[in-house]
Amino acid sequence: MATLEDVLATIDANQEEALARLFALLAIPSVSALPAHFPDCQRAADWLARELAELGFEAARRDTPGRPMVVGAAKAKTRDAPHVLFYGHYDVQPVDPLELWTTPPFEPRLADGPNGQRIVARGACDDKGQLMTFLEACRAFRSNGGLPCNVTVLFEGEEETGSPSLPAFLADNAKTLKADLALVCDTQMWSATTPAITTMLRGLVSEEVALRGPNRDLHSGLYGGAAVNPIHVLARVLADLRDADGVIALPGFYDGVEELPEEIAQQWRDLDFDETAFLGEVGLSTPAGEKGRSVLEMLWSRPTCDVNGIVGGYIGEGTKTVLPAKASAKVSFRLVGKQNPERIAQSFRAFVKARLPADVAAEFVSRGGSPAIAIAPRGEALRRARRALEAEWGKPAALVGSGGSIPVVATFKRELGMDSLLIGFGLDDDAIHSPNEKYERASFHKGARAWARVLAGFAA
Amino acid sequence: MATLEDVLATIDANQEEALARLFALLAIPSVSALPAHFPDCQRAADWLARELAELGFEAARRDTPGRPMVVGAAKAKTRDAPHVLFYGHYDVQPVDPLELWTTPPFEPRLADGPNGQRIVARGACDDKGQLMTFLEACRAFRSNGGLPCNVTVLFEGEEETGSPSLPAFLADNAKTLKADLALVCDTQMWSATTPAITTMLRGLVSEEVALRGPNRDLHSGLYGGAAVNPIHVLARVLADLRDADGVIALPGFYDGVEELPEEIAQQWRDLDFDETAFLGEVGLSTPAGEKGRSVLEMLWSRPTCDVNGIVGGYIGEGTKTVLPAKASAKVSFRLVGKQNPERIAQSFRAFVKARLPADVAAEFVSRGGSPAIAIAPRGEALRRARRALEAEWGKPAALVGSGGSIPVVATFKRELGMDSLLIGFGLDDDAIHSPNEKYERASFHKGARAWARVLAGFAA
Repeated sequence: MATLEDVLATIDANQEEALARLFALLAIPSVSALPAHFPDCQRAADWLARELAELGFEAARRDTPGRPMVVGAAKAKTRDAPHVLFYGHYDVQPVDPLELWTTPPFEPRLADGPNGQRIVARGACDDKGQLMTFLEACRAFRSNGGLPCNVTVLFEGEEETGSPSLPAFLADNAKTLKADLALVCDTQMWSATTPAITTMLRGLVSEEVALRGPNRDLHSGLYGGAAVNPIHVLARVLADLRDADGVIALPGFYDGVEELPEEIAQQWRDLDFDETAFLGEVGLSTPAGEKGRSVLEMLWSRPTCDVNGIVGGYIGEGTKTVLPAKASAKVSFRLVGKQNPERIAQSFRAFVKARLPADVAAEFVSRGGSPAIAIAPRGEALRRARRALEAEWGKPAALVGSGGSIPVVATFKRELGMDSLLIGFGLDDDAIHSPNEKYERASFHKGARAWARVLAGFAA
Repeated sequence: MATLEDVLATIDANQEEALARLFALLAIPSVSALPAHFPDCQRAADWLARELAELGFEAARRDTPGRPMVVGAAKAKTRDAPHVLFYGHYDVQPVDPLELWTTPPFEPRLADGPNGQRIVARGACDDKGQLMTFLEACRAFRSNGGLPCNVTVLFEGEEETGSPSLPAFLADNAKTLKADLALVCDTQMWSATTPAITTMLRGLVSEEVALRGPNRDLHSGLYGGAAVNPIHVLARVLADLRDADGVIALPGFYDGVEELPEEIAQQWRDLDFDETAFLGEVGLSTPAGEKGRSVLEMLWSRPTCDVNGIVGGYIGEGTKTVLPAKASAKVSFRLVGKQNPERIAQSFRAFVKARLPADVAAEFVSRGGSPAIAIAPRGEALRRARRALEAEWGKPAALVGSGGSIPVVATFKRELGMDSLLIGFGLDDDAIHSPNEKYERASFHKGARAWARVLAGFAA
């Protein structure tokens, strides 16, 4: 009978083939935000369904009103094994600004870095590299007698656009997808040498606002001074959203925001987070959030307001003396505690409307919302997962928060009554959502080994 | 010997051919702001040089460090005739937003409108249609014995980008270009039935500012709250530029701005300008400038600050949870009186820098500046021009201001010591610089007749 050591040895022996498989998936430009890439999302889903079938899963692409899901199921080699649902997403962020990529984003390559070789491509980390760590673990178990757990796999293609099809899909397929525990691989390690399990996640509200003034673009000489300029109005609204101390000015915004329990605050202080290095890596020196908060608080336990995009008027080369008809912005809020996404969206819309002068109208598009979540998986699963990660890295796994939101965790809980365990192998400098996204080759390799240990640990 | 009536009859008899010539010029996409259209600017210049040669001018394309000039010269049929320099520009504004054009901008067409047929194309009015009115007048004189004045023609290809090559070209060619008077055809009529001569022009300062924060685009979940967002900073700067009463907040901005002399103020009141109709035509109801000023003051005798374009972060479809590295804006100021363009540019830069938090740097690009100008041509030329326009339209020509700037007027005065007379046939609703730019067919036809009358009047 094969042992865990045999499985790990199989993973070690097949690294080149594993990389080739990941590169094939990374080459598919499955950008969910852009309709033109819809066929690529279908291709990525088909690729994953084939991959799962090859690994002995009963697997299929499952179409939805949006991008397709992929669902696969495989039995454990023994009876009475635990049942886990593994979740990942094959869709990726848009690649712009394209000119900042040193090589094309969908031509994956290896490059050298301070932590050894890295895999460079859009999606290398988020989330194709991460989800493939789990499939490589499954592959190694298959070569060594079979899986230690019953495994259902769910891959989504709309994570980067707010997962619009997910809740209904979960409800419709609850019987297939409900497991003892969900495993989600879309988070980071504490550092290149310290694994982590994420136990707090911020929520997210995304709103798009367009302000319209004149009924067409005007000549700024012939109308300037007399005609209202929607860019000015938008600038005023956005400027008013935060005060000089970084406090967000939406009425009721802080309802449901609580101070961090001292126990957790102490644990975070013990992490010895290097604020200077964290900010310095991205060219910054000074925390820009609410005054008097640590950077970890700003990132994990405090809400935010960010403008993710703004556009209005002429943005080409040179000048155009235009007074634009329209200006728009994409605004998002990261939520914590019990902040209510719907109420915050409403407060934002009222805030904008209260600042509109005569002749300016606002249009809003909601891009979705999800509350913050604190993850409390059953103690035993968390204990076993921590032990597995410690065995792989030789260090205890940190229990951390995350500034990003992974709405699927709330959806699993709500639709299926299922807890999630968030284990991921990304690093701070992976540049997810940015040009030249990468994933450490060590993350990819040791990630697969870690999942092998976790699954074996659950079944022990 | 042919009379003015013969010349006017020739213009009337050749309207279809005149339109075909204008359409040929409009079909050339000579957008000066975009380097890709440089060859098109050369084509437009060559086209005009050939046209002038056909009209008996000694004419040539004259290359510059930027877009070429076209210069032509023709003698009057009589000795001792006055000498005029006619100026126009063949370059046009960019066409975006392209999707708002009902037909392609460089496929000129006729459409029906409330004032009869209209010519629809980018440049139909600004300035290809306008400059062709003068050439059609010259063509009719050529068919009737020759020009009544010595005429030099100067066509420029960089008017929409601040005329960077013009001052040196004028200085280098002063002997050729110096005339008794410059005629500039780049302005508007008072209404579809009332001609106008423009005697006050606002100046312009254009600045581009880019704010940089993080050294790359960041994930707004992983960094949001702790990392400074350049869009927020830019919004604050732009919001601060104007107070709630529309007063521009740059220190020293109003230095050199004077109250309108009562004589001119009275003349403007007598124009019976319909503020409601003017704003209503572009979908507005309320003047947005300095409180307590009339719309004509806001447009002609008060300075402005407008954001002509802004961009930062993700502006594609859907959402991207990005915290951008950069945000930028194009800002312009319309100047009046003795406001100093250089000092205002400096004040703007200082104003931005004073509002930068830690970790945000500003880069500036100057896109040129020119002071406001009050035109005082010799009384006799103005008197004859008014009489000619009145003869064509049966109404006295209004003496008006213009919110736009026509820097060439200042340049002619400075480089050649030459006054200018600004006569144009555009209308408020011509949508210059906007989608679906048009020029009334009546403006094109009666404009040519008006120039014939003006030239004959100067020589009488």
